[in-house]
Amino acid sequence: MSLFAFRPLLNILPYRLFSQVCILPHEIDRFNAARVRIQDWPNDTKIIRETLSTSLNQWRNDKRTSAWLWIPIEQAHVIPIAAELGFAYHNAEERTAVLNQWLLTTKSMIPRFATHQVGVGGAVLHNKTNELLIIKERIGNREIWKLPGGSTDLSENIADGAIREVFEETGIHSKFESIIGFRQIHRYPGGHGRSDIYFICRLSTLTDTIDFDRNEVLDCKWIKLEDAIKDENPILRRAAKQLLFGLKNGFEQSIDFKLEQIPSIVTGFTFDFFTRPINSNK
Amino acid sequence: MSLFAFRPLLNILPYRLFSQVCILPHEIDRFNAARVRIQDWPNDTKIIRETLSTSLNQWRNDKRTSAWLWIPIEQAHVIPIAAELGFAYHNAEERTAVLNQWLLTTKSMIPRFATHQVGVGGAVLHNKTNELLIIKERIGNREIWKLPGGSTDLSENIADGAIREVFEETGIHSKFESIIGFRQIHRYPGGHGRSDIYFICRLSTLTDTIDFDRNEVLDCKWIKLEDAIKDENPILRRAAKQLLFGLKNGFEQSIDFKLEQIPSIVTGFTFDFFTRPINSNK
Repeated sequence: MSLFAFRPLLNILPYRLFSQVCILPHEIDRFNAARVRIQDWPNDTKIIRETLSTSLNQWRNDKRTSAWLWIPIEQAHVIPIAAELGFAYHNAEERTAVLNQWLLTTKSMIPRFATHQVGVGGAVLHNKTNELLIIKERIGNREIWKLPGGSTDLSENIADGAIREVFEETGIHSKFESIIGFRQIHRYPGGHGRSDIYFICRLSTLTDTIDFDRNEVLDCKWIKLEDAIKDENPILRRAAKQLLFGLKNGFEQSIDFKLEQIPSIVTGFTFDFFTRPINSNK
Repeated sequence: MSLFAFRPLLNILPYRLFSQVCILPHEIDRFNAARVRIQDWPNDTKIIRETLSTSLNQWRNDKRTSAWLWIPIEQAHVIPIAAELGFAYHNAEERTAVLNQWLLTTKSMIPRFATHQVGVGGAVLHNKTNELLIIKERIGNREIWKLPGGSTDLSENIADGAIREVFEETGIHSKFESIIGFRQIHRYPGGHGRSDIYFICRLSTLTDTIDFDRNEVLDCKWIKLEDAIKDENPILRRAAKQLLFGLKNGFEQSIDFKLEQIPSIVTGFTFDFFTRPINSNK
């Protein structure tokens, strides 16, 4: 329980009045961490330092695991003082920075913020000709043929992202069939030191008229798999080999990870699970 | 090119002297974006506002795509002024915040910061008995049997993360064999609105004596796959079914995505690629 029971008042009354006893309004979460999400911090540096310092002492006495501050961008003057008192950035996006510090003497158990971007490539096979849809993009000063695709949006499923990116770049409507491969890279250009996982999704066509995005894409065409396996782009070549093998042997029987729904034992909500189809009782 | 050619001086001389012409020291990156990475900003709010504002005007005139500020945590007093002038957080970690804004009239092309945590579970089969290694953990107020595993570190490969987590939690040394499935979830608890991809790695044993981490793990044991497929945990059950199927039909022939190395067409560096083995000429 918060020691400070007058939350609505705190942002109105001068902090100075409380300076001997004031603990920042906060909540205790299920990890026994103190979370402070106030919108209006005082302007006075000294008052901020006193309040934050008093709060930290209290939380340490109460054996809280960690302290977290959500600080609106307009109130970033609080941040250097928080840093002096041991806080560091956990993450920030748009108009909020999140700072934290571990309060126990043990090693911090706080997981790092997200480490990966997730990209999707669409391996779209034409339903009648079995040709593969590829686009030409400029990368640096080279022009490269590749699978259409891009980054998934926040909270977007892999399958949905692949269908969306293929449509945006090529004008082709498609249906998700499976995942046929994925790669992981670290410290990619423009990735701010983070990593990237790129999933190659096998998609079947719902329409076949190309209308590509001339802002992002130099060219777009259907290509025979026998030609794609000779392309200079190693991952395009490799994807085309999987597809050729799948055409011959049956996709599900040979190259696919299929999508199914599995419930979480903790929340009960289902999630997307990708694996080999085994035709056994699940 | 930066208009301001005296970079080393800027942090020594009073900014005021330059206030009519001063552009922040910056670099132009390959996306034609202006990047500012100075360590010492002036204290005076008015000078910061003037300098930043003059720089933005210059960059807009020069048709720069975007502006980026790397701001040390001690200098966060710059942030509210940057926000007034159109900047927002792109990301922050430890002692640096990164702010940016799109400068063209077109839609921003700046990718969002990393969206996913990557978790790994080890499906370790005992080399002699074909039993599966499982651990008991407390989640909320329940005790659940599951595969050993956890989050990968920044820049850690999936295979390495699985081997490390299995060893830390159970004391078992193992070897990476394949990936047999993965799931994606969004907005997981403690994930700050981000998503999670969890890869189930098939591992073979190098040692078989359990010595589990009593801080994190309640119990650890080998279990028959025929029993694991009846466990209450749906994803443990599902993984065990794949493994039973693989034992019968050959892992590579049935359930595995195997690891290979593919070179990037852009950088020439190889990356980890996971796909079905097809025994064809690559």
